[in-house]
Amino acid sequence: MHHADEAGARSRDSEQRRALDAVFDYVDRNAQDFVSCLMAYASHPSISAQNIGIDEVAHLLKERFLAMGMTAEILPTKGNPVVLAQWNRQAGAPTVLLYGHYDVQPPEPLEAWTTPPFEPTIRDGRIFARGIGDNKGQHFAQILAIESHLKVHGKLPCNVIFMLDGEEEVGSPNLPSFVLEHRERLKADLVVTADGSVHPSGTPIVQFGVRGLLNFELHVHGAKRDVHSGNYGGVVPNPAWTLVHLLATMKNAAGEITIDGVYDRVDPPSARELEAIAALPVNVAGLCEELGMTQLDQPQERGYFERLMFHPTLTINGLHSGYGGPGMKTIIPDSAFVKCDMRLVESQTPDEVFALVVKHVARHAPSVEVVRLNSMEPSKTSIESPYTQNIVTAIERAQGKRPLLYPVVGGSLPDYVFTKTLGLPAFLIPYANSDQANHAPNENLSIDCFLKGIKTGAALLACLFDRDVVGSST
Amino acid sequence: MHHADEAGARSRDSEQRRALDAVFDYVDRNAQDFVSCLMAYASHPSISAQNIGIDEVAHLLKERFLAMGMTAEILPTKGNPVVLAQWNRQAGAPTVLLYGHYDVQPPEPLEAWTTPPFEPTIRDGRIFARGIGDNKGQHFAQILAIESHLKVHGKLPCNVIFMLDGEEEVGSPNLPSFVLEHRERLKADLVVTADGSVHPSGTPIVQFGVRGLLNFELHVHGAKRDVHSGNYGGVVPNPAWTLVHLLATMKNAAGEITIDGVYDRVDPPSARELEAIAALPVNVAGLCEELGMTQLDQPQERGYFERLMFHPTLTINGLHSGYGGPGMKTIIPDSAFVKCDMRLVESQTPDEVFALVVKHVARHAPSVEVVRLNSMEPSKTSIESPYTQNIVTAIERAQGKRPLLYPVVGGSLPDYVFTKTLGLPAFLIPYANSDQANHAPNENLSIDCFLKGIKTGAALLACLFDRDVVGSST
Ligand SMILES: [Zn+2]
Ligand SMILES: [Zn+2]
Repeated sequence: MHHADEAGARSRDSEQRRALDAVFDYVDRNAQDFVSCLMAYASHPSISAQNIGIDEVAHLLKERFLAMGMTAEILPTKGNPVVLAQWNRQAGAPTVLLYGHYDVQPPEPLEAWTTPPFEPTIRDGRIFARGIGDNKGQHFAQILAIESHLKVHGKLPCNVIFMLDGEEEVGSPNLPSFVLEHRERLKADLVVTADGSVHPSGTPIVQFGVRGLLNFELHVHGAKRDVHSGNYGGVVPNPAWTLVHLLATMKNAAGEITIDGVYDRVDPPSARELEAIAALPVNVAGLCEELGMTQLDQPQERGYFERLMFHPTLTINGLHSGYGGPGMKTIIPDSAFVKCDMRLVESQTPDEVFALVVKHVARHAPSVEVVRLNSMEPSKTSIESPYTQNIVTAIERAQGKRPLLYPVVGGSLPDYVFTKTLGLPAFLIPYANSDQANHAPNENLSIDCFLKGIKTGAALLACLFDRDVVGSST
Repeated sequence: MHHADEAGARSRDSEQRRALDAVFDYVDRNAQDFVSCLMAYASHPSISAQNIGIDEVAHLLKERFLAMGMTAEILPTKGNPVVLAQWNRQAGAPTVLLYGHYDVQPPEPLEAWTTPPFEPTIRDGRIFARGIGDNKGQHFAQILAIESHLKVHGKLPCNVIFMLDGEEEVGSPNLPSFVLEHRERLKADLVVTADGSVHPSGTPIVQFGVRGLLNFELHVHGAKRDVHSGNYGGVVPNPAWTLVHLLATMKNAAGEITIDGVYDRVDPPSARELEAIAALPVNVAGLCEELGMTQLDQPQERGYFERLMFHPTLTINGLHSGYGGPGMKTIIPDSAFVKCDMRLVESQTPDEVFALVVKHVARHAPSVEVVRLNSMEPSKTSIESPYTQNIVTAIERAQGKRPLLYPVVGGSLPDYVFTKTLGLPAFLIPYANSDQANHAPNENLSIDCFLKGIKTGAALLACLFDRDVVGSST
């Protein structure tokens, strides 16, 4: 870089910092109002699993976007509608696609809530309400970030598309087809989602990928009915034993999945990924203590984050056959079944892996029935993406802390619709406190996290596409 | 044998036949009254599992024995009392110990009964009532056999001890200690029990042994609570997998138990036993059809009765871990357990086999908890017992049919208290029809079986100790 360019970059950078500081000031001045608005928003139930309040909340969101000066539509799917808002008045500027979901988990059991789930209440610096962390407080922070920018500067630093899903809590069944159908109007440069939790220490996080998911069941049928284990023991085949022997061919005691071909498409972590996970804090002893375990799963020699990020799993979620009550019941059960999930890593696909499972079962226990349930593609954006530094800088400017970078997280989200269907880099930047109790009674969001979220959202708009950003601590 | 002896034996034999025929005539003449008495007896509930009517029925029995001219006592145990009756006026004569149980199964579900379980009703030549087959109708037939002998001849051909258990349907927990405590007054030459069912063809049966039983559970503990299979998959050990891998070391897919030492005390069938089982009818295709199976359990090459009589089993009665409801639940379960029973063959003992199980688990999965439940020693009386021919002859005289001889049956009964504790030969001679529906709604006993039972009981008293008996079809 020439000296003149450098000087220009420094000047543009300080100008951008001043512009962003003005937005931060606005957020600080309006903090109380923003909290009130969020509480009003969270007071409207929108429970996808129970089909409660969905349309009402979609309309509230549309009105809010329109009032801010964005275009907004409620677009139908085969299930709940998507709220799609847009601001594209920076001609030729790049576009960020923001994703969130306006539906919430059912609040039950109601008696476990200290205050009613749809009567948002502040205690100890936190707002308690169903959906406050997952995901209303987080996408509402993004909305307020846009609003604050528009109020202070009359415009946004980049173009924005905001997509709010109404079925995330029931697995986003219509999101893949929606994204495919509307891929032209979803054209963007990257995707940012604010969902999940920051590190328990309060340190912010950026996640670059998720594992995929494949759920299936194996069903073994024995005699037409349970039979007496004395009168028929040795004569009538036992489906529980058939299932045990089949399962034992699918994963061994050393912790390796032994289905042929499952590891064919498992890539080792890159040097940069290894470097990133080496920097992540982990307290294995604390986790073992918390969960009452003496050691981690097999194999012992595998690193904590390598387990979660770079290895597929085959998990028994449920295994059932015969009698389960007190005392004894001397039967040979008539059937046995297992529910499994597999977490898949980048390059694996549920279709390919399911075909391997079917082939394995056909070879080892052809009478066993295989039933496919849900599945989700894995997703990974390179940690070496050119956006990584801009995101880190934005978070540093908003929160004064360098985020932890997670190349992958162990769970599964439909990020593949962005990375694989739309071909965009996608980043997950959680705003909520780690003890948000999402999906549980007394869900909550700390007001501090909420306000940091608004500022982070604002900083992202300012920094994402800024070629001059300089990290404060790289 | 000298000619004179032979002539004497023939003469004694025909005298005995005439004496027995007189008893048979008496039974025929009193058939209707006997059926009424049985129905009156079965109208009194005596449900050990529900502690209903036990003492009342014990007293009814005692009164009946006293009225017949036997001594009778109600002897306490830690649970329900034993009714013990005796007739010992043939000085120096041998003694048969008759065993039965006066308690019955609970009648539930009541709505499944065509007529109430304790209102005995005749339909289609059968008496319907709870306990009518298991075991009231069978030991009552023995009682009436004694009564008929006494009415016709004023005495019995041998001495008799009658022991009626009040806890058989709850596993006879106090029978072993009772027999040990009272072994002096239970001194006899052999034991005969009328329980179970004749062959479906109506052919009578003699059983010489039962398999033993060992029930145990294996419990695997994982994390303190179910955890998310995405967030912890690969990190937190899965107790369901631990249990699958442990079970797979205990029995292989070829059907062999692979616990070290389990086959050390498994004796092959004797030549006479092989001969006996070769004569037993079996319809494997019919059984497969009835139970909806395509083939028997592994190993395929093993004979039907060899499976049931001469091989131990390791049966999974129940296997449970994690989620079992509809759809998916992506968890790593916090625990897993299996309920197993082992059927043991003669020479094995539950104590020894349980020690092998404990040792196996300690070696393969030391963190797994082993819980011992019920157990019962196996029992076998030699099919070459000197009493075998006398029993066959008695049955032939009463029923006109040669019985099928079962060296062992697959189930488990506490016959070991007779064979092992008292050191006596013990024979099981069922009287009930094979579709008696014991332990089920609409339990029934065919009147024909009941009357044949009385005559068989009478013939046994006459023939058991007769050194001159000649089988009609040997
Ligand atoms: Zn959620
Ligand atoms: Zn019974």
